[in-house]
Amino acid sequence: MPHDAPETEHPNPWRRLDRSVRYENPWLTLWHDEVIRPDGQPGIYGVVHFANLAVGVVALDSDDRVVLVGQYRYTLDAWSWEIPEGGVPFDEDPRDGGARELREETGLHAATWHELGRVHLSNSVTDEAGVLFLATDLTEGEAAPDGTEAIEVRSVPFAEALAMTLDGRITDALTVLALQRVGLARIAAVRDASGS
Amino acid sequence: MPHDAPETEHPNPWRRLDRSVRYENPWLTLWHDEVIRPDGQPGIYGVVHFANLAVGVVALDSDDRVVLVGQYRYTLDAWSWEIPEGGVPFDEDPRDGGARELREETGLHAATWHELGRVHLSNSVTDEAGVLFLATDLTEGEAAPDGTEAIEVRSVPFAEALAMTLDGRITDALTVLALQRVGLARIAAVRDASGS
Repeated sequence: MPHDAPETEHPNPWRRLDRSVRYENPWLTLWHDEVIRPDGQPGIYGVVHFANLAVGVVALDSDDRVVLVGQYRYTLDAWSWEIPEGGVPFDEDPRDGGARELREETGLHAATWHELGRVHLSNSVTDEAGVLFLATDLTEGEAAPDGTEAIEVRSVPFAEALAMTLDGRITDALTVLALQRVGLARIAAVRDASGS
Repeated sequence: MPHDAPETEHPNPWRRLDRSVRYENPWLTLWHDEVIRPDGQPGIYGVVHFANLAVGVVALDSDDRVVLVGQYRYTLDAWSWEIPEGGVPFDEDPRDGGARELREETGLHAATWHELGRVHLSNSVTDEAGVLFLATDLTEGEAAPDGTEAIEVRSVPFAEALAMTLDGRITDALTVLALQRVGLARIAAVRDASGS
């Protein structure tokens, strides 16, 4: 196989013949498309279109503890520990939306924000995009979770939260992505500082 | 907030009153549920149920190069560089499924497999689960991509692939998760070996 092949132009090899809405609720739309596949054969594609951007926030306090929110995930029929997350409308600034989710779920306000990265969560079926932030300089206020959220809030040392992503106690992809990215950045910073 | 609160029992605070199938194709089923929410109020929940487990494979050769597969993602209307991935039926061993995807997309066979972890990719709306593997001791064979895949295969140094996850050239969540996890494990191994 070619090594380090240069980027080439990649035109869309799919052709859409028809699109119909098969389901819609405030959070998602399901499109059923009739397509011509890359190999020229007819096919179908069911696309789950998300109404909102997924925003996740690693909130770190001055003792290097990270805030985790626990909730029972209806889709999985299981409890899940996660960083504060929420759906943010595309016409809202993602950082403002992250700040709102953080405040609603934990009562925390963060003075300093740093974007950790952007991902596509499940691109074989959905167009869901996620943005991750690191939020620091925290001050405490009053939480106000919405009706669908019966949540618990705890803080754990960052190293412990990272360990939870590695041993399976945390499985939420946005949470794992965000904590591991912070972990990698710290190690790079230490390496750079030590000159090794 | 409580520090290091012990794990407690978490019964399901949601109650399902009704479930109906609103859409179905070979890859997913969309359930529309009538529910009682955790706050006791009536509501709805649209659940995207995946027919397959998502399996992703970090295939590393003896020169520490990782194999990336590029394809045009219909859902995003964009080209995406990713590790070899595919949907594996739940009654198949995930490793066998990963080996098949790797062979079909790249022609590679791996003699050594290591599970990197399991995640839930988008638990607000879907039940999609993913399993990630590190595959080494590679030998080359003949690729056989299926009709929906017009793919390009390249290999890049592992450090470069990891950099691509950090600077936004790679956005696929499974790929970012897997490469960052390998990166963290390497750093931990170096640290342990150096005794620092």
